[in-house]
Amino acid sequence: MPRRPKLRARPLEPRLRVVLVEPEIPPNTGSVARTCAATQSALHLVGKLGFRIDEQAVRRAGLDYWPLVDLHTHADLDDFVGARPEARLHLFAAGDHPSYLQMDVQPGDALVFGKESVGLDPAILEKHPDRIWTIPTMGAVRSLNLSNAVAIVLYEALRKLGALDETFVADDAVGRDDS
Amino acid sequence: MPRRPKLRARPLEPRLRVVLVEPEIPPNTGSVARTCAATQSALHLVGKLGFRIDEQAVRRAGLDYWPLVDLHTHADLDDFVGARPEARLHLFAAGDHPSYLQMDVQPGDALVFGKESVGLDPAILEKHPDRIWTIPTMGAVRSLNLSNAVAIVLYEALRKLGALDETFVADDAVGRDDS
Repeated sequence: MPRRPKLRARPLEPRLRVVLVEPEIPPNTGSVARTCAATQSALHLVGKLGFRIDEQAVRRAGLDYWPLVDLHTHADLDDFVGARPEARLHLFAAGDHPSYLQMDVQPGDALVFGKESVGLDPAILEKHPDRIWTIPTMGAVRSLNLSNAVAIVLYEALRKLGALDETFVADDAVGRDDS
Repeated sequence: MPRRPKLRARPLEPRLRVVLVEPEIPPNTGSVARTCAATQSALHLVGKLGFRIDEQAVRRAGLDYWPLVDLHTHADLDDFVGARPEARLHLFAAGDHPSYLQMDVQPGDALVFGKESVGLDPAILEKHPDRIWTIPTMGAVRSLNLSNAVAIVLYEALRKLGALDETFVADDAVGRDDS
């Protein structure tokens, strides 16, 4: 396959941070890492992971983009807050919370998502009751897939911040164009 | 885990259609099916699939939402167009195309995505040169994960159409709330 030029936008400054608290399913984290690489957002993995970060299933889902990911790990969310005190938190949860379309996002903010099985710990949500947002759904589903939720919120944040308004064309993709 | 009320929105009428042409990776299609269930969008699988639709990997990624999915299969894209002549096509491709933020989407439209490895066939793209959109990226990546791309485009279409503006709270989720 020939290489093909891509539509690019310039990264935000400071960049958004995606925070995954205790993610459980390797391909989801790999897929989130790919989205972080694609948006030049930092990826912070917090707490006990349900997998090793060098596991094949994680790596594969992130394709060969891991070298492009600004990856950090933290013992818990307080540790992340201590390391990035300037990052305002936006917590995402499936439930009766204001829509993510209303989030007051700014560059440098942290978009925080909980584990696939049960979401963010109630103790974390109770600590930041006015920082919780949700993605409205229409069918009788409990929630969206974690990596899809991150992608929806991240691109909405970038859109809202005008980061996607100015685009240019570049032929700078890593690796082959056929995978 | 207790059941928790969810933020819901009312389905579009007519609903959007998500069209996957020759998808290859089972969990991606499962994940797209979950997003379709969550947005009450129809899912059309077109052409030769890289898996059986009843495969465990597809089913699992869609969780127990398959009964909620309005699922159709077609031999090829022309067959889909014949079956849904009223659905205007929006083709999504990684490349030098206008941003998805500019898509002139209407209720009932079809959002068409190609296979993971190489995207939509050039013959399809050449047939509809003014119906192609792309999601801008910032890092040196080739593309986003297929199910993430669908989620981003679908939620942007719903936002643009105002389908997420009016929300309500419901406790109608299928199954347990802890998976």
